[in-house]
Amino acid sequence: MSERIGFIGLGNMGQAMAGGLLKAAYTLTVYNRTTSKAEALTAKGAQLAHQPSEAVRTGGIVVSMVANDQALEDIVMSQGFLERLGQNGIHLSMSTVSPFTARKLAELHAQHGSIYLAAPVFGRPDAAAAQKLWICLAGPQAGKERVRPVLEAMGQGIFDFGDDPGAANIVKLCGNFLIVSAMEAMAEALTLAEKSGLDRSAVLDMLAQTMFAAPIYQNYGKMIAEKRHTPVGFQQKLGLKDINLVREAAEYATMPMPLVSLMHDRLIAGVAKGRGEMDWSALSLDVLENAGLELP
Amino acid sequence: MSERIGFIGLGNMGQAMAGGLLKAAYTLTVYNRTTSKAEALTAKGAQLAHQPSEAVRTGGIVVSMVANDQALEDIVMSQGFLERLGQNGIHLSMSTVSPFTARKLAELHAQHGSIYLAAPVFGRPDAAAAQKLWICLAGPQAGKERVRPVLEAMGQGIFDFGDDPGAANIVKLCGNFLIVSAMEAMAEALTLAEKSGLDRSAVLDMLAQTMFAAPIYQNYGKMIAEKRHTPVGFQQKLGLKDINLVREAAEYATMPMPLVSLMHDRLIAGVAKGRGEMDWSALSLDVLENAGLELP
Amino acid sequence: MSERIGFIGLGNMGQAMAGGLLKAAYTLTVYNRTTSKAEALTAKGAQLAHQPSEAVRTGGIVVSMVANDQALEDIVMSQGFLERLGQNGIHLSMSTVSPFTARKLAELHAQHGSIYLAAPVFGRPDAAAAQKLWICLAGPQAGKERVRPVLEAMGQGIFDFGDDPGAANIVKLCGNFLIVSAMEAMAEALTLAEKSGLDRSAVLDMLAQTMFAAPIYQNYGKMIAEKRHTPVGFQQKLGLKDINLVREAAEYATMPMPLVSLMHDRLIAGVAKGRGEMDWSALSLDVLENAGLELP
Amino acid sequence: MSERIGFIGLGNMGQAMAGGLLKAAYTLTVYNRTTSKAEALTAKGAQLAHQPSEAVRTGGIVVSMVANDQALEDIVMSQGFLERLGQNGIHLSMSTVSPFTARKLAELHAQHGSIYLAAPVFGRPDAAAAQKLWICLAGPQAGKERVRPVLEAMGQGIFDFGDDPGAANIVKLCGNFLIVSAMEAMAEALTLAEKSGLDRSAVLDMLAQTMFAAPIYQNYGKMIAEKRHTPVGFQQKLGLKDINLVREAAEYATMPMPLVSLMHDRLIAGVAKGRGEMDWSALSLDVLENAGLELP
Repeated sequence: MSERIGFIGLGNMGQAMAGGLLKAAYTLTVYNRTTSKAEALTAKGAQLAHQPSEAVRTGGIVVSMVANDQALEDIVMSQGFLERLGQNGIHLSMSTVSPFTARKLAELHAQHGSIYLAAPVFGRPDAAAAQKLWICLAGPQAGKERVRPVLEAMGQGIFDFGDDPGAANIVKLCGNFLIVSAMEAMAEALTLAEKSGLDRSAVLDMLAQTMFAAPIYQNYGKMIAEKRHTPVGFQQKLGLKDINLVREAAEYATMPMPLVSLMHDRLIAGVAKGRGEMDWSALSLDVLENAGLELP
Repeated sequence: MSERIGFIGLGNMGQAMAGGLLKAAYTLTVYNRTTSKAEALTAKGAQLAHQPSEAVRTGGIVVSMVANDQALEDIVMSQGFLERLGQNGIHLSMSTVSPFTARKLAELHAQHGSIYLAAPVFGRPDAAAAQKLWICLAGPQAGKERVRPVLEAMGQGIFDFGDDPGAANIVKLCGNFLIVSAMEAMAEALTLAEKSGLDRSAVLDMLAQTMFAAPIYQNYGKMIAEKRHTPVGFQQKLGLKDINLVREAAEYATMPMPLVSLMHDRLIAGVAKGRGEMDWSALSLDVLENAGLELP
Repeated sequence: MSERIGFIGLGNMGQAMAGGLLKAAYTLTVYNRTTSKAEALTAKGAQLAHQPSEAVRTGGIVVSMVANDQALEDIVMSQGFLERLGQNGIHLSMSTVSPFTARKLAELHAQHGSIYLAAPVFGRPDAAAAQKLWICLAGPQAGKERVRPVLEAMGQGIFDFGDDPGAANIVKLCGNFLIVSAMEAMAEALTLAEKSGLDRSAVLDMLAQTMFAAPIYQNYGKMIAEKRHTPVGFQQKLGLKDINLVREAAEYATMPMPLVSLMHDRLIAGVAKGRGEMDWSALSLDVLENAGLELP
Repeated sequence: MSERIGFIGLGNMGQAMAGGLLKAAYTLTVYNRTTSKAEALTAKGAQLAHQPSEAVRTGGIVVSMVANDQALEDIVMSQGFLERLGQNGIHLSMSTVSPFTARKLAELHAQHGSIYLAAPVFGRPDAAAAQKLWICLAGPQAGKERVRPVLEAMGQGIFDFGDDPGAANIVKLCGNFLIVSAMEAMAEALTLAEKSGLDRSAVLDMLAQTMFAAPIYQNYGKMIAEKRHTPVGFQQKLGLKDINLVREAAEYATMPMPLVSLMHDRLIAGVAKGRGEMDWSALSLDVLENAGLELP
């Protein structure tokens, strides 16, 4: 019979990822602060935990997928969590958090004899449901080998960045920064095209079929070309949170990142104008406004 | 027997493109200011013209591929060029120039009864040699139909942007802006990775195999990851020239393009520091310097 | 009896400056494209010219104060202007124009035996009326000595920047760039203060009475603190024009000026949003908007 | 006989300020982590404390002037400090710290029955020695009245920003941001002047005698014009610290501050290049480098 593992954090991403584990025949104990979000999974056989530590088995594997650093720290520090995970337990931490949080928590787990693995992912909820995430992995070697089948049940590719758990988070932050930069470039270019009398979609189509034939340009490009920013895959305020994590990492590394600064200012303007809960591709609306165009 | 067409401008790109026309069995008359660059083509049967107008036949097609707006204007204004091209002649202008130059020259040709078609291309010399360029086309419909087989002998895809010849140039400028922005994002991200203790190439490989699996990220990304900026595909000073064309278009369209401003400042810093003739991916060296890292 | 001099360009600044010359007992022949603007001066004894060359006397002094490079070139190239100014005539050019225009026109005058002096000014119309402008002067030494009394009738201080007429224009452009930068800094700081619960004017008053006790901070600061951008002393679109002249000079000097880029993008956003004819201190409104605040 | 007050933090600023209090006939008990820095003051009659709480008298006034938020928190949390300050004691906190730290500490003092007053200052050590600082004051009204004579012994002007202790810190941060922005504008402008063939000092002199006749432009301007960045009045790395406090305040206020972003990137580049302990006016060296000029 298959291994029982814990899964903490059942937002849009977490639910889809846990669903992938069920499909792969894992037995799950799931926890979410708001219990109702567990229903779809318990209906498929997952067991419900009423506090984080109930999802943990000593020497077992517990996966977490939560909104931010604070939520992750709250779980790790919750009563009984670290004690119960105990000797040889593995915490597979898949949230996008700061590399500094990852390193601090890794040390804390080590003090309790358990292993913290950083495994942040790229992909939206539909990719998670299709078990097609891209996963960045970092932490102690022994732990990484043991969780490989678990990760394979969630992703289509696993990239190992060595022992430092912070490394996987750095890669994740770099990736999000590249995405948001590509969106800015498209937003400015397509608005120039529009104000020069061209059709936004025609320009995007050409570029995204040729030199930029990659999902980021095709999918986000389409939203930006069409000025249509629903459904919300990833909120602009979460994009700002991630850019702030990049700023924190750049500060620690002592280097200027002017494009990061620009993206920060773009995203926070959107949040200031009340668009924080729109999809982050809606940063394009700020480009339109500054060009004197009507918003859709 | 095949049509005889003229080809003006035999730099790295022009030579490769003219070679493609010879392969497609076109008969060529070629012109270049420095005659020696025509040798490879005359050895394959092209006829040599000693001034631009000699490459032109009345009612025929003449292709041009030169370095900048001034060079293009010099050809068009050279003695006998417009007069000889005459009624129903087509000038297929494939250089990257300003949309304003394109519109001005289109009007001038029209006054002489000929057609100016804008057909700027994406692709490096090796893509040109392989007849795999991406071509943006704009201008009068009748002309576009007639040149289609000529373009098909040079490119793998032709994208029509309507009647306004300036439109094709806008798309070309947008594309170059997207490329340079992607290079900046990669340069900042990989330098953050390096200063955070990660391996530049490992990070690039992950991103360029997954969400950013497109040639721009793979090819330029490799140069930036490895800090190796040879061979020179496109000089940094030409990148600056193109960004200045984008600035000019944005000014005319009355809109801010802050990422364009950032890229301008990055490229001109490289030129100021003596790197204008390096490949434009060498903008990454400025990122390294500002992060306090040694240059390779 | 006093010398008769010509005065071309009777906008707000020109009228006030010409008024100063009348007060200093100069005899004036004035020209303006729109004749009605000359009325106040002709009422005080100035003679009206019906074309630029009528304001010119051979070997005499003609002052010009016009809106931009094109207007200045139009005057210089107008029929009879250079011919009539002739041997030893002096054109005292006080408009804010490009250093490149200044150098080009200086050469043109020299070819006709006359002298072009660049003498751009700092100060608003009220300072001009009070004969309290600050004047930057550059050009041939002999000419500068002869015009000194004329300049003293308009300004409270004359600063000599040598023989190169372009030099005075560079200084003028540097000054305008410093002004607009100070306005941006104040706009951002006071908006931070407001969003942090402080009173904008209290913060401005403290700073402008102490470390920044200079007219720029006091006068523009008051407009920005109070969000009151009338009367219009200098239009935002003219500020954009001047920043573009700085960009042109920086391009020629081959150097990045990131704060110039930022100010360009700020000003053109204001123009794009329809505020081009407001006072340039209204760049502050863009700061408010991006902070999510209501405009006054 | 005069009141005995405590003074904690004897860096360059603290020593000069404490010296002013001695001149004003206050009796002092001074504390500094490195005892040797107290010698000049004990030689003039100040009593030496061996830990922060020894400088505190119940119901008395204790002044602090330390390097950063952490140092200030360490003092407040040091053994016996808050307990000893007790009922009606006043902590006059003059360091440049975050408004959030100020608010947090104010609450902590209130819980112990004492008063925390924020009173950050503008001015270099020589201004402090001359009792000519500019002081921003905020906190409970009763406390402010009681400390007024103490502040008058240190400053030439006191500006009251109300009850919120964070308010005084916001003003201080705004002021430092305005200073650094003015330095950037001068650095860019004077480098443009230099590369355009003008003399840096001639340009600075003109501007700083006229529209920008304020100490910031005159003093820092001279350093920037002459490329001479000694003596070190305020280190570049401390400038970066303060800009990061501005970034923190802007994040909390939810607004973009693009000029703050630019200054952050400028200052951190200087620190990355090893110039963190130079005077912050040395940000100008980064402007020179990016313009391709040799450093002095």
